[in-house]
Amino acid sequence: MASLSPQILQMKEERKKISFDVEEITNFVDGGPEESRLRREITAKIQNDPIAGDVDWFYKSGEEKFINAVKRSVRLKNMDMDIDMNSDTAMNAAFTACANSIGLPIHSGAFLPTVMNLGSPEQVEKWVPLALNFEIIGTYAQTELGHGTNLRGLETTATFLPDSQEFEIDCPKLTSMKWWPGDLGKCANHAVVMANLIINKQEYGMHPFIVQIRDLDTHQPLPGVRVGDIGRKFAFEVNDNGFLHMDHLRIPRENMLAGVAEVDSEGNYNLKSDPRLLYGGMMLIRVRLVDTQAIFPLQLACTIATRYSLMRKQGSIEPDEPEVSVLDYVAQQRKILPLIAQAYAFHFCARRTRLFYVDMMTEMRQGDFTNLPELHALTAGMKAYITEGCLEGTDICRRACGGHGYLEASGFPRIYLAQLASVTYEGENTVMYLQCARHLIKCASAASSGKTVKGFADYLNDDVKAKRSEKSQDELAHPVVLRECFRHRANRMVKYVHEKIQNLKATGKSHAEAWNLASVELVEMAKAHLDVYVISTFTKVIDEAKVSSRSRQVLFNLCSLWGLHILNRNIGSLLVDGYINAQQAEDMMEAELSCLSTVRQDALGLVDAFDFTDKTLQSCIGAYDGNVYERLYENAKRSPRNANEVHEGFYEIMKDSLRRGRDALRGMKSKL
Amino acid sequence: MASLSPQILQMKEERKKISFDVEEITNFVDGGPEESRLRREITAKIQNDPIAGDVDWFYKSGEEKFINAVKRSVRLKNMDMDIDMNSDTAMNAAFTACANSIGLPIHSGAFLPTVMNLGSPEQVEKWVPLALNFEIIGTYAQTELGHGTNLRGLETTATFLPDSQEFEIDCPKLTSMKWWPGDLGKCANHAVVMANLIINKQEYGMHPFIVQIRDLDTHQPLPGVRVGDIGRKFAFEVNDNGFLHMDHLRIPRENMLAGVAEVDSEGNYNLKSDPRLLYGGMMLIRVRLVDTQAIFPLQLACTIATRYSLMRKQGSIEPDEPEVSVLDYVAQQRKILPLIAQAYAFHFCARRTRLFYVDMMTEMRQGDFTNLPELHALTAGMKAYITEGCLEGTDICRRACGGHGYLEASGFPRIYLAQLASVTYEGENTVMYLQCARHLIKCASAASSGKTVKGFADYLNDDVKAKRSEKSQDELAHPVVLRECFRHRANRMVKYVHEKIQNLKATGKSHAEAWNLASVELVEMAKAHLDVYVISTFTKVIDEAKVSSRSRQVLFNLCSLWGLHILNRNIGSLLVDGYINAQQAEDMMEAELSCLSTVRQDALGLVDAFDFTDKTLQSCIGAYDGNVYERLYENAKRSPRNANEVHEGFYEIMKDSLRRGRDALRGMKSKL
Repeated sequence: MASLSPQILQMKEERKKISFDVEEITNFVDGGPEESRLRREITAKIQNDPIAGDVDWFYKSGEEKFINAVKRSVRLKNMDMDIDMNSDTAMNAAFTACANSIGLPIHSGAFLPTVMNLGSPEQVEKWVPLALNFEIIGTYAQTELGHGTNLRGLETTATFLPDSQEFEIDCPKLTSMKWWPGDLGKCANHAVVMANLIINKQEYGMHPFIVQIRDLDTHQPLPGVRVGDIGRKFAFEVNDNGFLHMDHLRIPRENMLAGVAEVDSEGNYNLKSDPRLLYGGMMLIRVRLVDTQAIFPLQLACTIATRYSLMRKQGSIEPDEPEVSVLDYVAQQRKILPLIAQAYAFHFCARRTRLFYVDMMTEMRQGDFTNLPELHALTAGMKAYITEGCLEGTDICRRACGGHGYLEASGFPRIYLAQLASVTYEGENTVMYLQCARHLIKCASAASSGKTVKGFADYLNDDVKAKRSEKSQDELAHPVVLRECFRHRANRMVKYVHEKIQNLKATGKSHAEAWNLASVELVEMAKAHLDVYVISTFTKVIDEAKVSSRSRQVLFNLCSLWGLHILNRNIGSLLVDGYINAQQAEDMMEAELSCLSTVRQDALGLVDAFDFTDKTLQSCIGAYDGNVYERLYENAKRSPRNANEVHEGFYEIMKDSLRRGRDALRGMKSKL
Repeated sequence: MASLSPQILQMKEERKKISFDVEEITNFVDGGPEESRLRREITAKIQNDPIAGDVDWFYKSGEEKFINAVKRSVRLKNMDMDIDMNSDTAMNAAFTACANSIGLPIHSGAFLPTVMNLGSPEQVEKWVPLALNFEIIGTYAQTELGHGTNLRGLETTATFLPDSQEFEIDCPKLTSMKWWPGDLGKCANHAVVMANLIINKQEYGMHPFIVQIRDLDTHQPLPGVRVGDIGRKFAFEVNDNGFLHMDHLRIPRENMLAGVAEVDSEGNYNLKSDPRLLYGGMMLIRVRLVDTQAIFPLQLACTIATRYSLMRKQGSIEPDEPEVSVLDYVAQQRKILPLIAQAYAFHFCARRTRLFYVDMMTEMRQGDFTNLPELHALTAGMKAYITEGCLEGTDICRRACGGHGYLEASGFPRIYLAQLASVTYEGENTVMYLQCARHLIKCASAASSGKTVKGFADYLNDDVKAKRSEKSQDELAHPVVLRECFRHRANRMVKYVHEKIQNLKATGKSHAEAWNLASVELVEMAKAHLDVYVISTFTKVIDEAKVSSRSRQVLFNLCSLWGLHILNRNIGSLLVDGYINAQQAEDMMEAELSCLSTVRQDALGLVDAFDFTDKTLQSCIGAYDGNVYERLYENAKRSPRNANEVHEGFYEIMKDSLRRGRDALRGMKSKL
């Protein structure tokens, strides 16, 4: 490739304009210089490895991606990293370096932790080393063909057989078949199966059982087991999501995971610890997935869209002037820049939620479950809120790249198609919002009876006054003022819905019916609450940041931009009770536009600070050097369709008619 | 398959509840009973044909889809349909029956019409029959690697060489390479190339030239031509979108399409007709694409989501009651039902726009260009508005189907991935909105100087008063009242932005700079204008409908629902100037919720009325009979990954470690 293409030169020029120290922000995002160093070391080790680092995604078939990913997971296990890989930083770095393509994710991310968390010490000792060494492959089988989110609707049963000291696992109907578990279709030879425990005809609800499903000699399904791949998806080719039908399959009694509850040889059901601890695993999955499956993709998408928009020239703002970068158009700025702000905001929130989770789990293990409802509401709500916001953001970035964003070479298909699933798995988003809402309505109820609300919904302690905020345009752009707006808005919305439900019940509706009738507003209200969590976290992070004043200002601008953008998109919710007036609504939009032009100059630095290698990005249009067009052309030449100049399949169909055309054209020429 | 699965029985029960005559609405949507009959006849002929009707999409590779589509296009040409296939109804029916998968679409949809519209009579006589018979394959090559939307930036040149009476076609830079044209990579042997005409060093701007690019004997690229496929995309596997680099390639003078302008043998440039007629072709493409590439996919998506949501049971609203259909949840209704309304609304709008286009083209051919700006603004704006609304809608439908919506078997990947491109091609949407806005600002300028505005922006003749609408909740749900709200809102927004631009200019900004600074609001204002067009069209269609009173009421409900939904999502724009107050904002939301429960009972009938065959739907979860789970399981069994019980590639990697696991587990057993 030519090293001096105009695009490369342009990117170099653009990089000179950055007003802040990119490395300082990178360190701040990572959590400190040492964390950055560690991340880079892990990334380099993995990406320089011939197997683990073979992340080239272009033109691979689904089967190639699947096999590569399995190889990579085995290789990562066997690599001599000489680093403790169990810290959050290390795990995230490995994940990022592999560009979200590590095989057997459910084996490692769900089967293994479930056995560790829910098994008895003996079970942990037996199964965990086998799983760690890939000597067994497990899956976590909960969702069924006919039921997902409503766990009470699951139909698979585990019936205790006292005579043989076994459980009989059974899927009585077509709809009871396990459906969707990852690594299940072709890989797993064991599964943690969630099934309704039945002892002496009495139902005890869902419990986990380790079930062997394939023969250890031949890897063939065991008798009574039908297992296979559920077919193609939008993406996730690296995963053999599967179906599993078990027909009166027997397993030993000791295969019921017995950390929380066990069935003794007499058929007595014994609770061994507080079952509320079970929520921990589910919440941890939600806490983690937003980082890897939502925020990381959005950061990639912002990096690609920003670099491409800076490099791409299109038209001139003034007639007869030279063409300008697409990012000089305000309409383009409003697409991308608030998303950069969002990628930062969400990153800080995810970190805060993780810390909160760790604190709460410590409390709970000590028997204090006071904060469980808050943690549950927060993790459920944030799962929905962040996956939704990041998915929308990635597609906005894709569109901001015009036609080239539709190419595999842009990197967007790889990023976006996997992300599409994030709004559904681990709790469908609307259901998640409603779980968050349930907690908020309880808080509102407490507040209305004069109690003080603690925690993230403490704005409910304030009176909702239809009192106008008297702020000027400049003041309205200040994060602290924006936080006040968000708190007022959430306070009003939660109390409004609480009252609506009370009123519906006063007209004779049941609580459940009233809840359903208010569900649209309940979801909106939960989002408004989560907005408060984001702006509060962002302002807190800035307050506590130990960075140079320039970096602080940059973060401050991002926080303003994020808050203004969200409020401007929902301006009706501030206008409706007169909290702001028409002039202030106008001011808020002008403040956002002004903020865009400030952030514009640092846009490249802000995405550079995410510090992705080109190998992680896998994008011809978003690479660091800006050499977009040469990369696109080189990538096109690799297309398998270009293996031969003449496409045989096509030519076979058309050659007779094309020859008639040749003869006709030659006939015309000879007549001339 | 069992014929009496609970899902089938449930769908039959649901169908009994429909309150209106589905066939009457089908006929109304089609434009009359005769149109319905014709559509069904064409659909049956195509879908019963072994080649044309082989539309099974599941588990096909990109290459299989490509070849199938080419075969289908040839077969359609050769089928004895015994029907005039040139009417809009017939063309749409054929397209729908083939489920959006016909090969060589740019040859038939762009190359051919361009030659017909822009060629001289001699050129039409020479090239059109060859193209119609697939004796030549052509493409339309305009977009380049470095430039798309900004036509003035295109770099390919066509230099007149008087000595040899030729044009020399040249792509001087890497970025000048044609990039994206459909059917180009491997199929086309000719191209209409748009190039900057240069005669005697003077530039005449973009003109169309017929360029042969492949050898007629061998189908190899001609000397001076580099051509190939541009690589994988989100979808469009059936199209070999290509690149084309031409290096001083010579073509005869008579290959410049000479219907509008020609270069004579002396090198004189002669205009032969009004170049504004050229817009006609571009506008026609935009008029047509919204039907096939946006509204059709949304109708499919609504059909799938509605049927699945009715069949799918999840949880109960009242504790201890039986499980209910997901569509009985208000939050689910609010996702899907406004989209059904939107699919109807957009269909009627597309039809009206088509009629308007035909009328305007008749005027223009008679030399009357008065209405060209209005038509151009409308077609550009509607292209953006409808593709955006339909794309968003399809993804909402997909999410409303939970995890199963992520399966290829759901049908959504087929629908959605092609649709992703619609917001970019044929005019990037933001650019399209801004073109619409340009016309509106001109209208506002006329209105402000006391002129009467005619056409779709005639609301600008009204005064914008901050006068409150005095309507009650019932009145606010009436389409005519909603139309007034939309007109007031657009009027206020257009005038606001017009004034903002004036004010910016008064502070010394150039018009271009002011335009850029106002572009966010310009886009919003264009959308508000297009909302007016939709609600006006929908109310007009209902007024003029010759249908039973029950059907009229059904359409009326849809129109209310659509209007309320859009306004509730943008309620700030009615609150800001006090047009409605807080109570009315609340009333509007309540009116929408009430409307949802009315439309809920007819939801199945409303999607049945789109009258798609199961072959057109290609969805296991949206088929007519509701037999979702058996279809999903049968489809999963077809997965190529299930060809062998043991996946060889996977087992090869893992078998050693799995054998160690086997031995370890056997060792543990022997110890027990």
